[in-house]
Amino acid sequence: MSQPAESWLPTLQTANAQAGYELAVKLGRLAVKLTQPSADVRDQLRPDYDHSSAQLIAVAQVVATNFQTIAAANNYWRG
Amino acid sequence: MSQPAESWLPTLQTANAQAGYELAVKLGRLAVKLTQPSADVRDQLRPDYDHSSAQLIAVAQVVATNFQTIAAANNYWRG
Amino acid sequence: MSQPAESWLPTLQTANAQAGYELAVKLGRLAVKLTQPSADVRDQLRPDYDHSSAQLIAVAQVVATNFQTIAAANNYWRG
Amino acid sequence: MSQPAESWLPTLQTANAQAGYELAVKLGRLAVKLTQPSADVRDQLRPDYDHSSAQLIAVAQVVATNFQTIAAANNYWRG
Amino acid sequence: MSQPAESWLPTLQTANAQAGYELAVKLGRLAVKLTQPSADVRDQLRPDYDHSSAQLIAVAQVVATNFQTIAAANNYWRG
Amino acid sequence: MSQPAESWLPTLQTANAQAGYELAVKLGRLAVKLTQPSADVRDQLRPDYDHSSAQLIAVAQVVATNFQTIAAANNYWRG
Repeated sequence: MSQPAESWLPTLQTANAQAGYELAVKLGRLAVKLTQPSADVRDQLRPDYDHSSAQLIAVAQVVATNFQTIAAANNYWRG
Repeated sequence: MSQPAESWLPTLQTANAQAGYELAVKLGRLAVKLTQPSADVRDQLRPDYDHSSAQLIAVAQVVATNFQTIAAANNYWRG
Repeated sequence: MSQPAESWLPTLQTANAQAGYELAVKLGRLAVKLTQPSADVRDQLRPDYDHSSAQLIAVAQVVATNFQTIAAANNYWRG
Repeated sequence: MSQPAESWLPTLQTANAQAGYELAVKLGRLAVKLTQPSADVRDQLRPDYDHSSAQLIAVAQVVATNFQTIAAANNYWRG
Repeated sequence: MSQPAESWLPTLQTANAQAGYELAVKLGRLAVKLTQPSADVRDQLRPDYDHSSAQLIAVAQVVATNFQTIAAANNYWRG
Repeated sequence: MSQPAESWLPTLQTANAQAGYELAVKLGRLAVKLTQPSADVRDQLRPDYDHSSAQLIAVAQVVATNFQTIAAANNYWRG
Protein backbone atom coordinates (compact mmCIF):
# COMPACT_ATOMS: atom_id res chain seq x y z
CA MET A 1 0.00 0.00 0.00
CA SER A 2 2.90 2.38 0.53
CA GLN A 3 6.49 2.86 -0.44
CA PRO A 4 8.81 2.36 2.51
CA ALA A 5 9.56 6.04 2.79
CA GLU A 6 5.97 7.29 2.95
CA SER A 7 3.39 6.95 5.67
CA TRP A 8 -0.31 6.55 4.93
CA LEU A 9 -1.29 7.64 8.44
CA PRO A 10 1.26 10.09 9.76
CA THR A 11 -0.91 11.70 12.43
CA LEU A 12 -4.42 11.95 13.87
CA GLN A 13 -4.10 15.70 14.35
CA THR A 14 -6.08 17.78 11.89
CA ALA A 15 -6.56 21.51 11.42
CA ASN A 16 -10.29 21.43 12.07
CA ALA A 17 -13.37 19.26 12.46
CA GLN A 18 -14.01 18.97 8.74
CA ALA A 19 -10.52 17.71 8.04
CA GLY A 20 -10.99 15.31 10.91
CA TYR A 21 -14.16 13.99 9.39
CA GLU A 22 -12.42 13.46 6.06
CA LEU A 23 -9.69 11.55 7.85
CA ALA A 24 -12.37 9.38 9.49
CA VAL A 25 -13.67 8.48 6.04
CA LYS A 26 -10.14 7.66 4.91
CA LEU A 27 -9.51 5.44 7.96
CA GLY A 28 -12.53 3.31 7.11
CA ARG A 29 -11.25 2.81 3.59
CA LEU A 30 -7.81 1.84 4.89
CA ALA A 31 -9.25 -1.16 6.71
CA VAL A 32 -10.92 -2.32 3.52
CA LYS A 33 -7.71 -1.88 1.52
CA LEU A 34 -5.67 -3.80 4.05
CA THR A 35 -8.21 -6.65 3.97
CA GLN A 36 -8.82 -6.64 0.22
CA PRO A 37 -5.63 -5.32 -1.42
CA SER A 38 -6.87 -5.75 -4.98
CA ALA A 39 -8.08 -2.44 -6.40
CA ASP A 40 -9.85 -4.37 -9.15
CA VAL A 41 -11.92 -6.36 -6.69
CA ARG A 42 -12.70 -3.25 -4.66
CA ASP A 43 -13.86 -1.45 -7.80
CA GLN A 44 -16.12 -4.35 -8.69
CA LEU A 45 -17.66 -4.21 -5.21
CA ARG A 46 -18.38 -0.49 -5.30
CA PRO A 47 -21.89 -0.68 -6.83
CA ASP A 48 -22.78 -3.30 -4.21
CA TYR A 49 -22.44 -0.80 -1.42
CA ASP A 50 -22.94 2.63 -2.97
CA HIS A 51 -26.33 1.55 -4.31
CA SER A 52 -27.41 -0.18 -1.09
CA SER A 53 -28.90 1.98 1.63
CA ALA A 54 -28.15 -0.67 4.26
CA GLN A 55 -24.48 -0.75 3.34
CA LEU A 56 -24.22 3.03 3.11
CA ILE A 57 -25.58 3.19 6.65
CA ALA A 58 -22.98 0.63 7.71
CA VAL A 59 -20.29 2.79 6.14
CA ALA A 60 -21.62 5.75 8.11
CA GLN A 61 -21.32 3.66 11.29
CA VAL A 62 -17.65 2.97 10.58
CA VAL A 63 -17.02 6.64 9.88
CA ALA A 64 -18.80 7.63 13.10
CA THR A 65 -16.60 5.30 15.11
CA ASN A 66 -13.41 6.56 13.51
CA PHE A 67 -14.55 10.15 13.94
CA GLN A 68 -14.92 9.52 17.70
CA THR A 69 -11.27 8.57 17.81
CA ILE A 70 -10.07 11.49 15.73
CA ALA A 71 -12.23 14.03 17.54
CA ALA A 72 -10.87 12.86 20.89
CA ALA A 73 -7.33 13.01 19.49
CA ASN A 74 -7.90 16.64 18.65
CA ASN A 75 -9.64 17.56 21.89
CA TYR A 76 -12.70 18.18 19.77
CA TRP A 77 -11.07 21.20 18.13
CA ARG A 78 -12.14 23.26 21.13
CA GLY A 79 -10.99 26.80 21.62
CA MET B 1 -20.00 18.85 -1.68
CA SER B 2 -18.86 22.37 -0.87
CA GLN B 3 -17.48 25.47 -2.48
CA PRO B 4 -13.89 26.08 -1.50
CA ALA B 5 -14.79 29.02 0.67
CA GLU B 6 -17.43 27.28 2.78
CA SER B 7 -17.10 24.59 5.40
CA TRP B 8 -19.70 21.87 5.90
CA LEU B 9 -18.44 21.09 9.41
CA PRO B 10 -17.04 24.22 10.99
CA THR B 11 -17.32 23.12 14.63
CA LEU B 12 -18.65 20.46 16.99
CA GLN B 13 -19.74 23.08 19.52
CA THR B 14 -23.48 23.64 19.70
CA ALA B 15 -25.67 25.89 21.80
CA ASN B 16 -27.52 23.04 23.49
CA ALA B 17 -28.25 19.32 23.48
CA GLN B 18 -30.96 19.54 20.87
CA ALA B 19 -28.73 21.36 18.40
CA GLY B 20 -26.10 18.74 19.16
CA TYR B 21 -28.50 15.97 18.33
CA GLU B 22 -29.39 17.62 15.04
CA LEU B 23 -25.70 17.87 14.23
CA ALA B 24 -25.36 14.15 14.97
CA VAL B 25 -28.05 13.43 12.41
CA LYS B 26 -26.26 15.65 9.91
CA LEU B 27 -22.93 13.90 10.51
CA GLY B 28 -24.43 10.54 9.63
CA ARG B 29 -25.76 11.93 6.38
CA LEU B 30 -22.35 13.42 5.54
CA ALA B 31 -20.77 9.99 5.49
CA VAL B 32 -23.39 8.78 3.07
CA LYS B 33 -22.93 11.81 0.83
CA LEU B 34 -19.16 11.39 0.76
CA THR B 35 -19.57 7.71 -0.18
CA GLN B 36 -22.44 8.17 -2.66
CA PRO B 37 -22.10 11.68 -4.08
CA SER B 38 -25.04 11.35 -6.48
CA ALA B 39 -28.13 13.03 -5.05
CA ASP B 40 -30.21 11.13 -7.59
CA VAL B 41 -29.03 7.76 -6.36
CA ARG B 42 -29.50 8.81 -2.74
CA ASP B 43 -33.06 9.92 -3.49
CA GLN B 44 -33.81 6.59 -5.13
CA LEU B 45 -32.54 4.78 -2.05
CA ARG B 46 -34.62 6.77 0.42
CA PRO B 47 -37.71 4.50 0.40
CA ASP B 48 -35.43 1.53 0.96
CA TYR B 49 -34.44 2.78 4.38
CA ASP B 50 -37.22 5.06 5.54
CA HIS B 51 -39.75 2.26 5.08
CA SER B 52 -37.56 -0.38 6.67
CA SER B 53 -37.60 -0.65 10.44
CA ALA B 54 -34.29 -2.49 10.44
CA GLN B 55 -32.59 0.26 8.49
CA LEU B 56 -34.18 3.01 10.55
CA ILE B 57 -32.76 1.33 13.64
CA ALA B 58 -29.37 1.21 11.95
CA VAL B 59 -29.67 4.93 11.24
CA ALA B 60 -30.45 5.50 14.92
CA GLN B 61 -27.28 3.58 15.81
CA VAL B 62 -25.18 5.87 13.63
CA VAL B 63 -26.81 8.94 15.16
CA ALA B 64 -26.22 7.58 18.68
CA THR B 65 -22.52 7.11 17.93
CA ASN B 66 -22.15 10.58 16.48
CA PHE B 67 -24.11 12.07 19.37
CA GLN B 68 -21.59 10.52 21.79
CA THR B 69 -18.84 12.44 20.06
CA ILE B 70 -20.72 15.71 19.95
CA ALA B 71 -21.95 15.46 23.53
CA ALA B 72 -18.40 14.87 24.74
CA ALA B 73 -17.19 17.79 22.64
CA ASN B 74 -19.66 20.01 24.47
CA ASN B 75 -19.00 18.63 27.93
CA TYR B 76 -22.55 17.35 27.83
CA TRP B 77 -23.91 20.92 27.95
CA ARG B 78 -23.53 20.80 31.73
CA GLY B 79 -24.29 23.81 33.83
CA MET C 1 -41.49 17.65 15.45
CA SER C 2 -41.79 20.60 17.77
CA GLN C 3 -43.32 24.02 18.01
CA PRO C 4 -40.72 26.74 17.87
CA ALA C 5 -41.10 27.55 21.51
CA GLU C 6 -40.57 24.04 22.85
CA SER C 7 -37.48 21.88 22.94
CA TRP C 8 -37.60 18.11 22.54
CA LEU C 9 -34.17 17.65 24.15
CA PRO C 10 -33.59 20.37 26.71
CA THR C 11 -30.89 18.58 28.73
CA LEU C 12 -29.03 15.32 29.25
CA GLN C 13 -29.16 15.70 33.03
CA THR C 14 -31.58 13.39 34.78
CA ALA C 15 -32.51 12.84 38.40
CA ASN C 16 -31.33 9.24 38.49
CA ALA C 17 -30.20 6.25 36.45
CA GLN C 18 -33.70 5.08 35.64
CA ALA C 19 -34.71 8.45 34.24
CA GLY C 20 -31.46 8.39 32.27
CA TYR C 21 -32.32 5.04 30.81
CA GLU C 22 -35.74 6.28 29.78
CA LEU C 23 -34.11 9.24 28.09
CA ALA C 24 -31.82 6.83 26.22
CA VAL C 25 -34.87 5.05 24.86
CA LYS C 26 -36.35 8.38 23.83
CA LEU C 27 -33.15 9.44 22.06
CA GLY C 28 -33.23 6.35 19.89
CA ARG C 29 -36.78 7.10 18.87
CA LEU C 30 -35.86 10.69 18.02
CA ALA C 31 -33.44 9.54 15.34
CA VAL C 32 -36.16 7.44 13.76
CA LYS C 33 -38.64 10.32 13.86
CA LEU C 34 -36.16 12.71 12.28
CA THR C 35 -35.46 10.20 9.50
CA GLN C 36 -39.06 9.05 8.97
CA PRO C 37 -41.30 11.96 10.00
CA SER C 38 -44.56 10.22 9.08
CA ALA C 39 -46.26 8.82 12.17
CA ASP C 40 -48.42 6.68 9.90
CA VAL C 41 -45.44 4.98 8.32
CA ARG C 42 -43.79 4.50 11.71
CA ASP C 43 -46.96 2.90 13.06
CA GLN C 44 -47.08 0.53 10.11
CA LEU C 45 -43.48 -0.49 10.77
CA ARG C 46 -44.01 -1.22 14.45
CA PRO C 47 -44.96 -4.91 14.11
CA ASP C 48 -41.90 -5.42 11.91
CA TYR C 49 -39.57 -4.69 14.78
CA ASP C 50 -41.51 -5.41 17.95
CA HIS C 51 -42.19 -8.96 16.76
CA SER C 52 -38.65 -9.54 15.53
CA SER C 53 -36.08 -10.63 18.08
CA ALA C 54 -33.24 -9.51 15.82
CA GLN C 55 -34.64 -6.00 15.54
CA LEU C 56 -35.44 -5.80 19.23
CA ILE C 57 -31.81 -6.63 19.94
CA ALA C 58 -30.77 -3.91 17.50
CA VAL C 59 -33.01 -1.47 19.37
CA ALA C 60 -31.32 -2.51 22.61
CA GLN C 61 -27.95 -1.75 21.00
CA VAL C 62 -29.06 1.77 20.14
CA VAL C 63 -30.36 2.30 23.66
CA ALA C 64 -27.11 0.99 25.13
CA THR C 65 -25.11 3.46 23.06
CA ASN C 66 -27.30 6.38 24.04
CA PHE C 67 -27.25 5.32 27.66
CA GLN C 68 -23.43 5.50 27.59
CA THR C 69 -23.70 9.13 26.60
CA ILE C 70 -26.33 10.00 29.17
CA ALA C 71 -24.62 8.12 31.98
CA ALA C 72 -21.37 9.96 31.27
CA ALA C 73 -23.26 13.26 31.15
CA ASN C 74 -24.54 12.55 34.66
CA ASN C 75 -21.25 11.29 36.05
CA TYR C 76 -22.97 7.96 36.41
CA TRP C 77 -25.24 9.33 39.17
CA ARG C 78 -22.45 8.67 41.65
CA GLY C 79 -22.69 9.84 45.21
CA MET D 1 -43.03 -2.25 34.20
CA SER D 2 -42.89 -1.11 37.80
CA GLN D 3 -45.10 -0.03 40.60
CA PRO D 4 -44.76 3.66 41.30
CA ALA D 5 -42.91 3.07 44.53
CA GLU D 6 -40.22 0.80 43.12
CA SER D 7 -37.34 1.53 40.78
CA TRP D 8 -36.08 -0.97 38.22
CA LEU D 9 -32.71 0.78 37.91
CA PRO D 10 -31.82 2.41 41.21
CA THR D 11 -28.06 2.64 40.64
CA LEU D 12 -25.17 1.67 38.38
CA GLN D 13 -22.92 0.96 41.36
CA THR D 14 -22.29 -2.72 42.01
CA ALA D 15 -20.25 -4.58 44.58
CA ASN D 16 -17.92 -6.17 42.03
CA ALA D 17 -17.29 -6.88 38.37
CA GLN D 18 -19.49 -9.94 38.27
CA ALA D 19 -22.48 -8.09 39.67
CA GLY D 20 -21.74 -5.37 37.13
CA TYR D 21 -21.80 -7.87 34.32
CA GLU D 22 -25.13 -9.23 35.51
CA LEU D 23 -26.50 -5.69 35.56
CA ALA D 24 -25.28 -5.24 31.97
CA VAL D 25 -27.30 -8.28 30.95
CA LYS D 26 -30.32 -6.86 32.74
CA LEU D 27 -29.96 -3.47 31.04
CA GLY D 28 -30.12 -5.08 27.62
CA ARG D 29 -33.31 -6.86 28.57
CA LEU D 30 -34.82 -3.62 29.84
CA ALA D 31 -34.61 -2.04 26.41
CA VAL D 32 -36.43 -5.00 24.92
CA LYS D 33 -39.14 -4.85 27.59
CA LEU D 34 -39.67 -1.14 27.08
CA THR D 35 -40.00 -1.67 23.33
CA GLN D 36 -42.08 -4.86 23.47
CA PRO D 37 -44.03 -4.76 26.75
CA SER D 38 -45.91 -7.99 26.12
CA ALA D 39 -44.34 -10.86 28.04
CA ASP D 40 -46.25 -13.27 25.84
CA VAL D 41 -44.72 -11.92 22.66
CA ARG D 42 -41.26 -11.88 24.23
CA ASP D 43 -41.65 -15.50 25.29
CA GLN D 44 -42.66 -16.46 21.78
CA LEU D 45 -39.57 -14.75 20.40
CA ARG D 46 -37.15 -16.49 22.77
CA PRO D 47 -36.40 -19.54 20.59
CA ASP D 48 -35.73 -17.20 17.67
CA TYR D 49 -32.71 -15.73 19.39
CA ASP D 50 -31.51 -18.33 21.86
CA HIS D 51 -31.20 -20.89 19.07
CA SER D 52 -29.57 -18.48 16.63
CA SER D 53 -25.83 -18.00 16.92
CA ALA D 54 -26.03 -14.71 15.02
CA GLN D 55 -28.58 -13.29 17.44
CA LEU D 56 -26.74 -14.58 20.49
CA ILE D 57 -23.66 -12.74 19.24
CA ALA D 58 -25.79 -9.62 18.82
CA VAL D 59 -26.98 -10.01 22.40
CA ALA D 60 -23.36 -10.27 23.50
CA GLN D 61 -22.67 -7.00 21.67
CA VAL D 62 -25.42 -5.24 23.59
CA VAL D 63 -24.14 -6.64 26.87
CA ALA D 64 -20.58 -5.55 26.02
CA THR D 65 -21.76 -2.00 25.38
CA ASN D 66 -23.74 -1.83 28.61
CA PHE D 67 -20.86 -3.36 30.53
CA GLN D 68 -18.61 -0.53 29.29
CA THR D 69 -20.98 1.94 30.88
CA ILE D 70 -21.29 0.07 34.15
CA ALA D 71 -17.58 -0.64 34.42
CA ALA D 72 -16.81 3.05 33.94
CA ALA D 73 -19.47 3.94 36.51
CA ASN D 74 -17.66 1.75 39.02
CA ASN D 75 -14.15 2.91 38.13
CA TYR D 76 -13.57 -0.62 36.95
CA TRP D 77 -13.76 -1.94 40.51
CA ARG D 78 -10.11 -0.99 40.96
CA GLY D 79 -8.43 -1.23 44.30
CA MET E 1 -23.00 -21.27 35.78
CA SER E 2 -21.10 -21.20 39.05
CA GLN E 3 -21.13 -22.69 42.49
CA PRO E 4 -22.08 -20.13 45.12
CA ALA E 5 -18.57 -19.94 46.46
CA GLU E 6 -16.81 -19.18 43.17
CA SER E 7 -16.87 -16.09 41.00
CA TRP E 8 -16.69 -16.25 37.22
CA LEU E 9 -15.56 -12.63 36.93
CA PRO E 10 -13.53 -11.72 39.99
CA THR E 11 -11.66 -8.76 38.45
CA LEU E 12 -10.96 -6.82 35.26
CA GLN E 13 -7.29 -6.41 36.18
CA THR E 14 -4.90 -8.57 34.18
CA ALA E 15 -1.15 -8.96 34.18
CA ASN E 16 -0.70 -7.78 30.62
CA ALA E 17 -2.44 -6.94 27.34
CA GLN E 18 -2.55 -10.52 26.13
CA ALA E 19 -4.28 -11.73 29.29
CA GLY E 20 -6.65 -8.80 28.88
CA TYR E 21 -7.48 -9.85 25.37
CA GLU E 22 -8.17 -13.39 26.52
CA LEU E 23 -10.49 -12.01 29.18
CA ALA E 24 -12.29 -10.01 26.48
CA VAL E 25 -12.92 -13.23 24.57
CA LYS E 26 -14.21 -14.84 27.75
CA LEU E 27 -16.55 -11.93 28.48
CA GLY E 28 -18.22 -12.32 25.11
CA ARG E 29 -18.81 -15.99 25.77
CA LEU E 30 -20.30 -15.19 29.19
CA ALA E 31 -23.10 -13.17 27.62
CA VAL E 32 -23.94 -16.09 25.37
CA LYS E 33 -23.92 -18.53 28.28
CA LEU E 34 -26.17 -16.32 30.36
CA THR E 35 -28.62 -16.03 27.46
CA GLN E 36 -28.46 -19.65 26.32
CA PRO E 37 -27.55 -21.73 29.39
CA SER E 38 -27.75 -25.08 27.61
CA ALA E 39 -24.28 -26.32 26.70
CA ASP E 40 -25.90 -28.77 24.29
CA VAL E 41 -27.61 -26.04 22.33
CA ARG E 42 -24.45 -23.93 22.31
CA ASP E 43 -22.45 -26.88 20.98
CA GLN E 44 -24.98 -27.42 18.22
CA LEU E 45 -24.69 -23.77 17.24
CA ARG E 46 -20.91 -23.75 17.06
CA PRO E 47 -20.58 -24.75 13.37
CA ASP E 48 -23.08 -22.03 12.50
CA TYR E 49 -20.71 -19.32 13.59
CA ASP E 50 -17.23 -20.78 13.36
CA HIS E 51 -17.78 -21.61 9.70
CA SER E 52 -19.41 -18.28 8.88
CA SER E 53 -17.12 -15.37 8.10
CA ALA E 54 -19.90 -12.88 8.83
CA GLN E 55 -20.47 -14.32 12.29
CA LEU E 56 -16.77 -14.58 13.05
CA ILE E 57 -16.49 -10.88 12.24
CA ALA E 58 -19.42 -10.21 14.58
CA VAL E 59 -17.61 -12.15 17.30
CA ALA E 60 -14.54 -10.01 16.69
CA GLN E 61 -16.70 -6.92 17.16
CA VAL E 62 -17.90 -8.15 20.54
CA VAL E 63 -14.35 -8.94 21.59
CA ALA E 64 -13.17 -5.50 20.44
CA THR E 65 -15.84 -3.83 22.56
CA ASN E 66 -15.01 -5.86 25.64
CA PHE E 67 -11.30 -5.29 25.10
CA GLN E 68 -11.94 -1.53 25.19
CA THR E 69 -13.40 -1.93 28.65
CA ILE E 70 -10.65 -4.17 29.93
CA ALA E 71 -7.87 -2.07 28.45
CA ALA E 72 -9.28 1.04 30.10
CA ALA E 73 -9.62 -0.84 33.38
CA ASN E 74 -5.90 -1.61 33.21
CA ASN E 75 -4.81 1.86 32.11
CA TYR E 76 -3.73 0.19 28.89
CA TRP E 77 -0.94 -1.67 30.70
CA ARG E 78 1.21 1.45 30.36
CA GLY E 79 4.59 1.68 32.01
CA MET F 1 -1.63 -20.11 19.04
CA SER F 2 1.69 -19.43 20.71
CA GLN F 3 4.58 -21.21 22.30
CA PRO F 4 4.73 -20.59 26.02
CA ALA F 5 7.72 -18.31 25.73
CA GLU F 6 6.26 -15.92 23.16
CA SER F 7 3.50 -13.38 23.46
CA TRP F 8 1.18 -12.50 20.58
CA LEU F 9 0.15 -9.21 22.21
CA PRO F 10 3.02 -7.87 24.26
CA THR F 11 1.92 -4.23 24.34
CA LEU F 12 -0.57 -1.69 23.00
CA GLN F 13 2.11 0.96 22.66
CA THR F 14 3.20 1.68 19.12
CA ALA F 15 5.71 4.08 17.60
CA ASN F 16 3.12 6.01 15.62
CA ALA F 17 -0.46 6.12 14.38
CA GLN F 18 0.19 3.92 11.37
CA ALA F 19 1.71 1.17 13.47
CA GLY F 20 -1.27 1.52 15.78
CA TYR F 21 -3.65 1.06 12.91
CA GLU F 22 -1.82 -2.06 11.80
CA LEU F 23 -2.09 -3.41 15.33
CA ALA F 24 -5.83 -2.71 15.24
CA VAL F 25 -6.11 -4.86 12.12
CA LYS F 26 -4.12 -7.59 13.83
CA LEU F 27 -6.33 -7.47 16.93
CA GLY F 28 -9.42 -8.12 14.85
CA ARG F 29 -7.79 -11.15 13.30
CA LEU F 30 -6.79 -12.47 16.72
CA ALA F 31 -10.43 -12.74 17.77
CA VAL F 32 -11.20 -14.75 14.67
CA LYS F 33 -8.22 -17.05 15.25
CA LEU F 34 -9.17 -17.65 18.86
CA THR F 35 -12.73 -18.51 17.80
CA GLN F 36 -11.84 -20.56 14.71
CA PRO F 37 -8.37 -22.02 15.33
CA SER F 38 -8.24 -23.97 12.07
CA ALA F 39 -6.16 -22.12 9.48
CA ASP F 40 -7.70 -24.34 6.81
CA VAL F 41 -11.22 -23.27 7.67
CA ARG F 42 -10.18 -19.61 7.86
CA ASP F 43 -8.56 -19.85 4.44
CA GLN F 44 -11.72 -21.36 3.00
CA LEU F 45 -13.75 -18.49 4.43
CA ARG F 46 -11.52 -15.75 3.01
CA PRO F 47 -13.34 -15.32 -0.34
CA ASP F 48 -16.61 -15.08 1.55
CA TYR F 49 -15.58 -11.85 3.18
CA ASP F 50 -12.95 -10.30 0.94
CA HIS F 51 -15.35 -10.39 -2.00
CA SER F 52 -18.33 -9.12 0.00
CA SER F 53 -18.66 -5.39 0.46
CA ALA F 54 -20.95 -5.87 3.45
CA GLN F 55 -18.43 -8.04 5.24
CA LEU F 56 -15.52 -5.78 4.36
CA ILE F 57 -17.44 -2.92 5.95
CA ALA F 58 -18.01 -5.09 9.03
CA VAL F 59 -14.27 -5.76 9.16
CA ALA F 60 -13.67 -2.01 9.00
CA GLN F 61 -16.02 -1.58 11.96
CA VAL F 62 -14.02 -4.04 14.03
CA VAL F 63 -10.78 -2.30 13.10
CA ALA F 64 -12.28 1.09 13.98
CA THR F 65 -13.25 -0.17 17.43
CA ASN F 66 -9.84 -1.66 18.09
CA PHE F 67 -8.15 1.47 16.80
CA GLN F 68 -10.09 3.50 19.39
CA THR F 69 -8.55 1.39 22.11
CA ILE F 70 -5.03 1.54 20.72
CA ALA F 71 -5.18 5.26 20.00
CA ALA F 72 -6.31 5.94 23.57
CA ALA F 73 -3.54 3.69 24.87
CA ASN F 74 -1.03 5.84 23.02
CA ASN F 75 -2.55 9.18 23.97
CA TYR F 76 -3.30 9.59 20.30
CA TRP F 77 0.42 9.89 19.51
CA ARG F 78 0.20 13.57 20.45
CA GLY F 79 3.26 15.73 20.66
